[in-house]
Amino acid sequence: MVGIIMGSDSDLKIMKEAATVLEELGVEYELTIVSAHRTPERMFDYAKTARERGVKVIIAGAGGAAHLPGMVASLTPLPVIGVPIKSSNSIDGWDSILSILQMPNGIPVATVALNAAKNAGILAARIIGTSNAGVTGRLEYYREGLKKSVAEKIDKIKWEYKNEYDHRSDED
Amino acid sequence: MVGIIMGSDSDLKIMKEAATVLEELGVEYELTIVSAHRTPERMFDYAKTARERGVKVIIAGAGGAAHLPGMVASLTPLPVIGVPIKSSNSIDGWDSILSILQMPNGIPVATVALNAAKNAGILAARIIGTSNAGVTGRLEYYREGLKKSVAEKIDKIKWEYKNEYDHRSDED
Amino acid sequence: MVGIIMGSDSDLKIMKEAATVLEELGVEYELTIVSAHRTPERMFDYAKTARERGVKVIIAGAGGAAHLPGMVASLTPLPVIGVPIKSSNSIDGWDSILSILQMPNGIPVATVALNAAKNAGILAARIIGTSNAGVTGRLEYYREGLKKSVAEKIDKIKWEYKNEYDHRSDED
Amino acid sequence: MVGIIMGSDSDLKIMKEAATVLEELGVEYELTIVSAHRTPERMFDYAKTARERGVKVIIAGAGGAAHLPGMVASLTPLPVIGVPIKSSNSIDGWDSILSILQMPNGIPVATVALNAAKNAGILAARIIGTSNAGVTGRLEYYREGLKKSVAEKIDKIKWEYKNEYDHRSDED
Amino acid sequence: MVGIIMGSDSDLKIMKEAATVLEELGVEYELTIVSAHRTPERMFDYAKTARERGVKVIIAGAGGAAHLPGMVASLTPLPVIGVPIKSSNSIDGWDSILSILQMPNGIPVATVALNAAKNAGILAARIIGTSNAGVTGRLEYYREGLKKSVAEKIDKIKWEYKNEYDHRSDED
Amino acid sequence: MVGIIMGSDSDLKIMKEAATVLEELGVEYELTIVSAHRTPERMFDYAKTARERGVKVIIAGAGGAAHLPGMVASLTPLPVIGVPIKSSNSIDGWDSILSILQMPNGIPVATVALNAAKNAGILAARIIGTSNAGVTGRLEYYREGLKKSVAEKIDKIKWEYKNEYDHRSDED
Amino acid sequence: MVGIIMGSDSDLKIMKEAATVLEELGVEYELTIVSAHRTPERMFDYAKTARERGVKVIIAGAGGAAHLPGMVASLTPLPVIGVPIKSSNSIDGWDSILSILQMPNGIPVATVALNAAKNAGILAARIIGTSNAGVTGRLEYYREGLKKSVAEKIDKIKWEYKNEYDHRSDED
Amino acid sequence: MVGIIMGSDSDLKIMKEAATVLEELGVEYELTIVSAHRTPERMFDYAKTARERGVKVIIAGAGGAAHLPGMVASLTPLPVIGVPIKSSNSIDGWDSILSILQMPNGIPVATVALNAAKNAGILAARIIGTSNAGVTGRLEYYREGLKKSVAEKIDKIKWEYKNEYDHRSDED
Repeated sequence: MVGIIMGSDSDLKIMKEAATVLEELGVEYELTIVSAHRTPERMFDYAKTARERGVKVIIAGAGGAAHLPGMVASLTPLPVIGVPIKSSNSIDGWDSILSILQMPNGIPVATVALNAAKNAGILAARIIGTSNAGVTGRLEYYREGLKKSVAEKIDKIKWEYKNEYDHRSDED
Repeated sequence: MVGIIMGSDSDLKIMKEAATVLEELGVEYELTIVSAHRTPERMFDYAKTARERGVKVIIAGAGGAAHLPGMVASLTPLPVIGVPIKSSNSIDGWDSILSILQMPNGIPVATVALNAAKNAGILAARIIGTSNAGVTGRLEYYREGLKKSVAEKIDKIKWEYKNEYDHRSDED
Repeated sequence: MVGIIMGSDSDLKIMKEAATVLEELGVEYELTIVSAHRTPERMFDYAKTARERGVKVIIAGAGGAAHLPGMVASLTPLPVIGVPIKSSNSIDGWDSILSILQMPNGIPVATVALNAAKNAGILAARIIGTSNAGVTGRLEYYREGLKKSVAEKIDKIKWEYKNEYDHRSDED
Repeated sequence: MVGIIMGSDSDLKIMKEAATVLEELGVEYELTIVSAHRTPERMFDYAKTARERGVKVIIAGAGGAAHLPGMVASLTPLPVIGVPIKSSNSIDGWDSILSILQMPNGIPVATVALNAAKNAGILAARIIGTSNAGVTGRLEYYREGLKKSVAEKIDKIKWEYKNEYDHRSDED
Repeated sequence: MVGIIMGSDSDLKIMKEAATVLEELGVEYELTIVSAHRTPERMFDYAKTARERGVKVIIAGAGGAAHLPGMVASLTPLPVIGVPIKSSNSIDGWDSILSILQMPNGIPVATVALNAAKNAGILAARIIGTSNAGVTGRLEYYREGLKKSVAEKIDKIKWEYKNEYDHRSDED
Repeated sequence: MVGIIMGSDSDLKIMKEAATVLEELGVEYELTIVSAHRTPERMFDYAKTARERGVKVIIAGAGGAAHLPGMVASLTPLPVIGVPIKSSNSIDGWDSILSILQMPNGIPVATVALNAAKNAGILAARIIGTSNAGVTGRLEYYREGLKKSVAEKIDKIKWEYKNEYDHRSDED
Repeated sequence: MVGIIMGSDSDLKIMKEAATVLEELGVEYELTIVSAHRTPERMFDYAKTARERGVKVIIAGAGGAAHLPGMVASLTPLPVIGVPIKSSNSIDGWDSILSILQMPNGIPVATVALNAAKNAGILAARIIGTSNAGVTGRLEYYREGLKKSVAEKIDKIKWEYKNEYDHRSDED
Repeated sequence: MVGIIMGSDSDLKIMKEAATVLEELGVEYELTIVSAHRTPERMFDYAKTARERGVKVIIAGAGGAAHLPGMVASLTPLPVIGVPIKSSNSIDGWDSILSILQMPNGIPVATVALNAAKNAGILAARIIGTSNAGVTGRLEYYREGLKKSVAEKIDKIKWEYKNEYDHRSDED
């Protein structure tokens, strides 16, 4: 199971993309709010009990001085994925990125791009996939889908721009 | 009493300036290492018991993804002063500054300049001084000292540059 | 009493949040406009007389080349809280932050996050609380409120996302 | 097995820290040079064959316009950890960080801090640990070691600064 | 022939400006979608076969962690022009610029300004013009057009602001 | 006379503020378009003949890679004021600021804030005022006006916020 | 006379370049230390009396949260040139630049490049030269000197690199 | 012939790498100093006569407010390659990069990485190669050399790290 947590319900519109893609990839998850600064005891308990409750990977999203991913990573041996969120109190996202990414030696956070909750979900599935061939199979199918969606767009603009080049990725 | 904490003993060469200036200003302090990421339980206990142990202001220094000041502030009603440290794992100090400064609504950290542990000490003394006229008196004396040290430098370079302008701050 | 000042009436929509939270916390305040660049004499007089008029903490908000908090701090022994404002003439707030935060040794400003007037108010209350147990009590109550508001949001999204994890901060 | 690759042998002095920590944690690894720009065919082959060769996690380090981690992630369903390196041709590391972190939707890279090859190794072990309790056990032991090393430093500076506060993390 | 490629059809509204200006300058082009991360095999084939298919210059536009221009440049001896695109997943364009510009020694990308697909087209024409006097002639005519359009604007605002200064560029 | 020039008519909505304030201060000016990149010959002639045509100060506004102010400064002994403009092709104004401000030794440009054409006009008047007491007098009157406008705003918000502090700048 | 002031004697090694170039250009100056934060009364008096003491232009250098140039500009109608100094407490100079450059409407500071005290001196001379043909003449001579020094370097590297191109600026 | 120019002889230690690589690739060049700000007339003449003198591509290096590449591009129809130099008066290279890269529509500069004079030379050769198969052949040979140098390093570290993976780029 993947545990998805975020500092505030205002992050939900971003973070639910992690839930959606995990569903597509057939990976179980739980999702709730855990605030490092407003509910520090809840954060402690969540992080310390996650593994025994069956969580394998934690996805934590936060913005501004974003301490949730790093603090959770310091309280569990599970891999923690951090999603920097460009929240209303963030300076163009720089604060969110740097306070999640720049963890000291010993306590890593797997940081993804700004607002990239979807990629956090896919990364979690890749991690689950290291011991679950079914998930990896669905990830391969998902990557094929990305190629197909590009192929459709190639065809769509092909007529307007008369481009003869027609190699497809799946031919290689 | 002012509690001075820092994430690592490598921060001590910066953070001891806070201790030194507090001694000059006649303000009691304690100083120790509390790491948000390596000793999270110690951090919790320190922050939650600080007030009952007689601490009035906490000065917390940290670098990189600097979570110590903000996490401590979320666990105590005391004023917390954050010192961003340009540690070896910091990107020119930007990560340290932003992860201390950009706290969400509800949990403020009083942030001072990069590496400015001395100013953190003076700020703590100003806070103590709001209910201790003796400390405020010493702070006034300290500010007079700043003016005097400038006056000496004015005199020192005056002969080389033949400057007639001679107003001193204390004349006003 | 807390003195709230700002460089321009265009900052009022941000800075009044400091006043509002101080009222909630039962801390007296005054609020007015003091411009470092357009009314430098008024700034001098305000800063130099603030302590004798009963002000214990000054909150100063300014944007762009934001000199008000630092100049006031150089003219009073009171703790000065600086609020960097992302005004229309600011470069994404970086100028406001850096010109308030990066004060030289001897003259600290307690800087809060960009536009964080509310946090400036709470920080002022924490400072007043170092010698006023009533204010500290109300601050503790305020922090409990933050936890409760998170708890309500946890319940609200719980049904949609079927999350069994139910630890509350106040159980710890 | 963890595959450690880097764009240039000049990155080896940083990247070998990943190898060292994996050895400490009892995780097998391979380490070699794969350059996205100078050996693109080797990169393609490495990424496409990694899973069948028994690699479970790839750690890729690169500096400047750092395309190796993202390109490898686009060619394999394995989790890929990116280490931004502050190489001689990097602008304070910003280019390395952004060209690894800011991957488009569909292809995530688990980015760690600048030069944080050690944390990349620990993160890889955490991922391996999701299906290997022995590795997770060694990670827990490793985290205990971090606490102990802090405890020693607390004692070391305790006498100089006469600090009575003595809570240890392992008491909690 | 100039090959115009881009990572996504969402870049088309910017990248078609390259096509438009090449048409104005009488330079042939092809335009299609080639994604480094979603269709890596197509990218490899495109880059490796471009020269034999008669492409002389490649214009590649991409945003975020923009690997397309640099990867293509590593697979062809043709000059490659990179257009950093401020896409929705970009941090104000900085990631796009740095991941295109900061290529390592050996593999250059000719980077133009953020979103400057038009300039990429003109630069491609300048390159074609090094062995095609007709194209250079049309480029000179184009530059004259820039001067004329300025001259018209000078006249337009001249009456409102009563400016006597009347030197024109073509008089020199 | 002050010469106001800009790279494009799209800069006029900003740059005309320089003209307006110069009129208020009774300083003559001319205003026209001079583009460093589209009309380089016109720029050369303008800069080289400005002094003999009676221009005493040049105000040059430009955005993006803003070469106009610096190039003009290299072609005249007059003081040149540069106005960095946050034009549509600018990266948050950073490119405009840095390419105007960071001139090499020997050729200074007096740079004002982003989009600060009004301040450029006032600075030009201050320069003219060094040999024209009438202009300096009007500048003093202008500064008094700034104080008065603040005083009015102080009164306006005074009733809402019941502030007793009433020192005015002109009392000092 | 040009008044050169700086916040600290540690800025003297930079700021004396302004004095040196003014001597070369035959412009009188005075030089002293005026600290906005440590001697605010002296700063007030200096700025308010500068014009009556015969100062025509003020050059003010400061680093970090650099308030001196802007505060002086708010207290005098004279043109004020600001020199951002990359002092030891500065973040790569960004704080110094932004807190001098980004002045609000009404109070301009003529900002020069980081550490560019020499250019501040030349700019002051250009300003003096608007009413002093002798100074302008010496400035023209100075600019000729820049051309000559380039010409010498052209000759010096000419033999090593066998370059036939030999146009000199003074031929035009 | 490729024309290599730079703003100052202090740039020569960087810029001569362009000359060296062009020699290796068998492409003729000339190299001299042309300063936009100190010898603007020489810059005008150089740019306007370059094509008739047989120059096909211009490489221009400059630092700080780097106007040389963009100004030259505005005066010639030739492709101009800009090399941003991290000179002593540059702010970590950002000013050099932005003032070269961010050219307005109509006048492109082909910008390479910070200090990347070598890549500028290779890019110039790629451009020459669009009409010179011999140069393209030598470029292909050069790219093979890059692969070989990686292969040697792979072997060198192979024994220390016992890596079995042995695919070479030239096998593909």
